[in-house]
Amino acid sequence: MEEAFEKTANAAMALVVNTTESLESPTVAPGKEQQAAGLGILLQIMMLVLSFVIGHVLRRHKFYYLPEASASLLIGIAVGILANVSNTETSTRTWFNFHEEFFFMFLLPPIIFQSGFSLAPKPFFSNFGAIVSFAILGTFISSSVTAILVYLGGLLLLMYKLPFVECMMFGALISATDPVTVLSIFQELGSDINLYALVFGESVLNDAMAISLYRAMSSFRKHDSSFGNFFGIIWSFLEIFLGSLASGVGVGFTSSLLFKYAGFNIDNLYNLECCLFVLFPYFSYMLAEGVGLSGIVSILFTGIVMKHYTHTNLSENSQRFVTAFFHLISSLAETFVFIYMGFDIAMERHSWSHIGFIVFSILFIIIARAVNVFSCAYLVNMIRPASRKIPIQHQKALCFSGLRGAMAFALALQSLNDLPEGHGQTIFTATTAIIVLSVLLIGGSTGPMLEALQVVGDEHDGPLGERFEDDNYSDSYGEESSTSNRIKMRLKEFRTPSFSSLDKNYLTPFFTSQNEDGINSD
Amino acid sequence: MEEAFEKTANAAMALVVNTTESLESPTVAPGKEQQAAGLGILLQIMMLVLSFVIGHVLRRHKFYYLPEASASLLIGIAVGILANVSNTETSTRTWFNFHEEFFFMFLLPPIIFQSGFSLAPKPFFSNFGAIVSFAILGTFISSSVTAILVYLGGLLLLMYKLPFVECMMFGALISATDPVTVLSIFQELGSDINLYALVFGESVLNDAMAISLYRAMSSFRKHDSSFGNFFGIIWSFLEIFLGSLASGVGVGFTSSLLFKYAGFNIDNLYNLECCLFVLFPYFSYMLAEGVGLSGIVSILFTGIVMKHYTHTNLSENSQRFVTAFFHLISSLAETFVFIYMGFDIAMERHSWSHIGFIVFSILFIIIARAVNVFSCAYLVNMIRPASRKIPIQHQKALCFSGLRGAMAFALALQSLNDLPEGHGQTIFTATTAIIVLSVLLIGGSTGPMLEALQVVGDEHDGPLGERFEDDNYSDSYGEESSTSNRIKMRLKEFRTPSFSSLDKNYLTPFFTSQNEDGINSD
Repeated sequence: MEEAFEKTANAAMALVVNTTESLESPTVAPGKEQQAAGLGILLQIMMLVLSFVIGHVLRRHKFYYLPEASASLLIGIAVGILANVSNTETSTRTWFNFHEEFFFMFLLPPIIFQSGFSLAPKPFFSNFGAIVSFAILGTFISSSVTAILVYLGGLLLLMYKLPFVECMMFGALISATDPVTVLSIFQELGSDINLYALVFGESVLNDAMAISLYRAMSSFRKHDSSFGNFFGIIWSFLEIFLGSLASGVGVGFTSSLLFKYAGFNIDNLYNLECCLFVLFPYFSYMLAEGVGLSGIVSILFTGIVMKHYTHTNLSENSQRFVTAFFHLISSLAETFVFIYMGFDIAMERHSWSHIGFIVFSILFIIIARAVNVFSCAYLVNMIRPASRKIPIQHQKALCFSGLRGAMAFALALQSLNDLPEGHGQTIFTATTAIIVLSVLLIGGSTGPMLEALQVVGDEHDGPLGERFEDDNYSDSYGEESSTSNRIKMRLKEFRTPSFSSLDKNYLTPFFTSQNEDGINSD
Repeated sequence: MEEAFEKTANAAMALVVNTTESLESPTVAPGKEQQAAGLGILLQIMMLVLSFVIGHVLRRHKFYYLPEASASLLIGIAVGILANVSNTETSTRTWFNFHEEFFFMFLLPPIIFQSGFSLAPKPFFSNFGAIVSFAILGTFISSSVTAILVYLGGLLLLMYKLPFVECMMFGALISATDPVTVLSIFQELGSDINLYALVFGESVLNDAMAISLYRAMSSFRKHDSSFGNFFGIIWSFLEIFLGSLASGVGVGFTSSLLFKYAGFNIDNLYNLECCLFVLFPYFSYMLAEGVGLSGIVSILFTGIVMKHYTHTNLSENSQRFVTAFFHLISSLAETFVFIYMGFDIAMERHSWSHIGFIVFSILFIIIARAVNVFSCAYLVNMIRPASRKIPIQHQKALCFSGLRGAMAFALALQSLNDLPEGHGQTIFTATTAIIVLSVLLIGGSTGPMLEALQVVGDEHDGPLGERFEDDNYSDSYGEESSTSNRIKMRLKEFRTPSFSSLDKNYLTPFFTSQNEDGINSD
């Protein structure tokens, strides 16, 4: 059994090496290559199926200590170790670049789009201010705190010394939190709606923030190494973030107008409708990448806009189909990302010489996470009315949910290219260690944590995500949803032009083909 | 406008070159690469959207002279010519291998699977004997006739001279007919059900036959160049064909048992069910490729089996979803294949020096097609009862429908690697010319042809495919469907163990979870 496994693993390696070689020498027999590729992909499909089945079995037995993501990660690591042990001669570095491209081009887009697409508009928009604070300001705080601590640690010889701009890059990449695992448990256990919206919204938007910040730092590092040009960084960041946001929102609105006026739903052109719909997100991603912006940020906002406007312009059949389609594609990509991450963690050369860096950076990101959450929550609570303050349990839960995943890994991979040899290696190894620990530890203990903090809802088995999307639930926080409160909110809506009123009065009528009733019930 | 287009086309080229280079020198900045890749994929998405929209507009105006496939091909050729004109310095050969891999690994599998999956079981099985004759015997006849004529043409100095085994390879690859374009027009116009089943069944199965034959010849050519070992070829062909068939059917049956007993439909695990379902076809493909068989043949039979058995074990929601899913994926892949083919035809180096080869091979494949269809039809009509004979109009329509497409192109690409430089080039150029001509000419004239042969049904607008799948239509041919005929058929079923009775009495009860009624109505 194990031998067969090793053989297959060898074949997977051979696939990559062969593919690389084939590009250099085009006369290699394609039969052999295809055979090796077949075995390699076969192995990956088997790992995927295994992950799905194991995840299913664990969930069925309500064993929350090993979520699906952790299981996938462990499967990947196990297969990677086997492949590593059985095959030490071929250089594992050759296929590394392909790997990263594949990550960014084909695995991340569906995941990020689905994050935006599955965002329940109501709780998201009603907590919009708080989410943006946590995501934008919070991620900036978290990155800076991590960077400063790591820089100081380097100065005090506690850990490997990095230049400050590289510390900022590390801070940015390690501040990207992953929604996958924690949220699946939140859904399973049925946590508070507002807490769910906060955790989900923050982890989705902070990816966008982290990647923009990382890129800004990276381009700053390349072009100018003096620190006088502080506004250059800010400008670069704003350019990437706002440009990508605008491109994503633009593509989303374009798609909504296309589907509003093309009249596919009249002609019953079910397949054409779906084909065009699924091409738009990728179009948004590639458009942003093509003009040098961040595809991830762009596709995220395209997802939000397409869900809110374009989706309602589809025929009913197509609506159901595309929802299921993106759910399916992103599930496959997510599971594959964790497997692939595990595999790569086991295969990649790590520099374990700077063990101090790893230990201290774990300590520092915990501190940074706490500073981020509690300071932002303090600010949000200062502005919010007494009835809508974020309770301390929610703050603790949010602080706890800072699991690091695919985005941090992908950026760490990129840092191997962006930074000098030793620096990139150290950051990559530390990031890897943090991801594995946080996925296994945080992922495994989210269930008990939620119960200990008493933020678990009543319905233990109901799928929370669907409840969010279908329910016509009230705007206000918790139990204080009295009528007077509602009227106050509605009055406030008319006094200050909020996003909700803009949406209701102008955007929805313009971009969707709904009638008045539809708008009101939405 | 044109300049922008050229720039994008350049970027598409750069993408490929960059990707290739990046594998060789892993220190290339990934930002630039991603940007180029973004523009390249953006261009491809734009071509896809353009094809869909043009196809839609043409179909809406009932303009059958330029079907969607022809439109896609022309778009690809146009963009390819632009890219070629604007960029002559970069070597277009570098990305050629990747191209072929991409074709075989990611574009063909969904198309072929969908062919099997959308096969309406009733008309297919009731014409099973005829279809198998046309596909297996007919393709063999067609390949041999083409090969002999081309070989003789070479001997008589009419055309470029090739060794006989290479003539056989050319014969095999050029005998693979493409169902896409012709069938979409058949569906649109509503042709006779049995004719549709014949054309569809033949074009689907003969791909499998052609690829097996091609591979057998190719491996024969490599290992042994004497012609004494005739049984070696037969053995090699049978090994590939039957092995792949068995592996495909085996995976299909495995999946049906998994879904029968796993009980996903009870637990309402909609997403898990769909995830696993969509992984199976690819598993089948990669398994066959991994052990050195033909993935195309394997995935085709997996499609047939999964449609007939596994599909009925899914929950109703999942049934609808996976049908729409495969339809969507294969539509995208199909359109992309024609665009890509057009693009590559315009980009690839062609050897136009052997124009005689092209002209004569076009003549020869027309002869071979006619010999194939009319001789097989003669044989089938000898065996069939008078009421079920294939009318001469259907024979003519079948003969006419021999459009060459993706499979021939992919095999011709492979022949560039398999054969010596000049030979492969000549075959590739001839195949390319044949594909372009047949797609444009046959595709454009299928509508008038069907009307001239008076094989057009009554319902001009009904989607024929759906009618096939849903209708509970009778087994016998044409109007002679009297009760006595049915009873005779039923009696015959009990006398000689036919596939239908085997299916009804053993396979369906064993592999599906349907009740008795379900089986009878199926």
